[in-house]
Amino acid sequence: MKNSELRQDPVSGDWIVIAPGRAKRPKQLLAKVPKREKISARNCPFEDLKKSGNKPPVLTYPNKHQWALQVVENKYPALVHKAVCGKLSRRGPYSVLPGNGRHDLIITHDHDKNFVHLSSEQANLVFQAFRDRSLMLSNDQCLAYISTFHNWGPFAGASVYHPHYQLIALPVVPPDVNHSLQGSARFYREHKKCVHCMMIESEQKDKKRVIVENEGAIAFTPFVSRSPFEIRVFPKKHLPYFENTYDSDMVSVVDVLRRALAKVEKNLHDPDYNFFIHTAPMQNKENYRHYHWHIEITPKVTIKAGFELGTGMDVNVVDPDEAAKILR
Amino acid sequence: MKNSELRQDPVSGDWIVIAPGRAKRPKQLLAKVPKREKISARNCPFEDLKKSGNKPPVLTYPNKHQWALQVVENKYPALVHKAVCGKLSRRGPYSVLPGNGRHDLIITHDHDKNFVHLSSEQANLVFQAFRDRSLMLSNDQCLAYISTFHNWGPFAGASVYHPHYQLIALPVVPPDVNHSLQGSARFYREHKKCVHCMMIESEQKDKKRVIVENEGAIAFTPFVSRSPFEIRVFPKKHLPYFENTYDSDMVSVVDVLRRALAKVEKNLHDPDYNFFIHTAPMQNKENYRHYHWHIEITPKVTIKAGFELGTGMDVNVVDPDEAAKILR
Repeated sequence: MKNSELRQDPVSGDWIVIAPGRAKRPKQLLAKVPKREKISARNCPFEDLKKSGNKPPVLTYPNKHQWALQVVENKYPALVHKAVCGKLSRRGPYSVLPGNGRHDLIITHDHDKNFVHLSSEQANLVFQAFRDRSLMLSNDQCLAYISTFHNWGPFAGASVYHPHYQLIALPVVPPDVNHSLQGSARFYREHKKCVHCMMIESEQKDKKRVIVENEGAIAFTPFVSRSPFEIRVFPKKHLPYFENTYDSDMVSVVDVLRRALAKVEKNLHDPDYNFFIHTAPMQNKENYRHYHWHIEITPKVTIKAGFELGTGMDVNVVDPDEAAKILR
Repeated sequence: MKNSELRQDPVSGDWIVIAPGRAKRPKQLLAKVPKREKISARNCPFEDLKKSGNKPPVLTYPNKHQWALQVVENKYPALVHKAVCGKLSRRGPYSVLPGNGRHDLIITHDHDKNFVHLSSEQANLVFQAFRDRSLMLSNDQCLAYISTFHNWGPFAGASVYHPHYQLIALPVVPPDVNHSLQGSARFYREHKKCVHCMMIESEQKDKKRVIVENEGAIAFTPFVSRSPFEIRVFPKKHLPYFENTYDSDMVSVVDVLRRALAKVEKNLHDPDYNFFIHTAPMQNKENYRHYHWHIEITPKVTIKAGFELGTGMDVNVVDPDEAAKILR
């Protein structure tokens, strides 16, 4: 692929640009990936959570005396839990809501082991914690959506080196999720089929962009990739809800995620990256049977500039076919 | 403002979070703004455009022998002009369009003078070039939207130090613009009023967030600011189309923009930034009378992380009231 091409995301309906002519060869792009500085455990606030002024953990695995993973409320939360739901109010011509919600940190014990370097058991524990915490919050009628994500490295927005994951529970369904849900519902009405299942089938048939696969899950660089080396990980089973996923399926997803991230680390010059879970909203669950939860991995190898900020239209300088070749 | 608050953008309908408790004091945030390295003119590809292998300029001001500003086609274009319009086609289950369009650079002569340091005359020339080029392209039936923007500094995505501006003409209306147009149309139907005029009035009444103002234009940190120190610049007159703006109004906008950017440089530790123009689409112009063109300035002081990428919901750690105080 030499010439630029516009591609339409079948879920959101958004157009993106694949423009391989914009960049030098992808390998030269990767040579410029900034090096992450390793920060020692000496002043790390996550070594002793109590000493760092955190409240007692919400969840501890396997037990308090020798923890492998703890879920704690973020000391610097974006949103804070209140006993009653926030009320919509008007400020002049604007609608506002109090910042009620949840903001938790999921912290793994070992200062130097990020997700890729956890044992399979530990990696599964991280996802068990995501799920347990989501289920704990699922009866809270004030909450509309849970976003679970990981920032790895300062260029991906992590302010603490020690590996940690975050969960933010919101009183509204956020905009990008809303657009995706609408698109997914529209596709279902028109084709009587899940749009994500269609994408998985298409990528399996095409083969070119599949990175890792096992019996229950698959990872590929999507035909409509918004950013270079973007990877999406899906459970193969049509599952709308992350938190209602059984162990057997979750184990498959975690295995594929770990192997995909190991390839990111090895083949993309160990870049910083984000990953996040897209799942269906918490209320009126019966309305979202068309949705299919998944994980998106976005390695941090380029910067969003004025065009992307001004249009919401991503220009991806790496052809996803080429990205898959490099990643595999 | 101490507690977080969700605020709904009256144009797009999107919710954002203002979370001043997340950051240290804004001044500490600014102390971490990375320093931009000054790069000498010696190997600069924009000193001699012909020698750097560029085609003859599309536009030159004031004349070829002593140019102050040139418009050239980008050597590494995201989109390329073709004689015929691109045809929508299907690739498996996906819709694709050839990457037809335009990608121009607007280059000012002086290697060391970014927009803030141009004379008033030169700054107006930049906007004259934006407008002239937009008008030149306005009869091209293959084009749907023109995005004009500026990346200042590497952290804002500029790959060349020499000050330059970009114009990308697209065969589709991009997603964020689409959402804004829909929101603006909806507001107009419901209130018989331009949503942006309403915002301008509200900010003028409130006064707290106004940064710079003159007879014809105004700059403020919006009540619903998506990122720290975001500034929006509006012509006060209700004008849907950037390219149909008369000199007298444009001069006011350029004056306010220059003064606002000077405050960004002086009061925010000289950060990298982007600015971009939001205007109405090129075809079916009569449908967009409700729209009001404007400029958005986004200083690069924080990084979008997993939550923002995963939800499209921005968490702004600086209260826009506070941002305005620091900027003024």
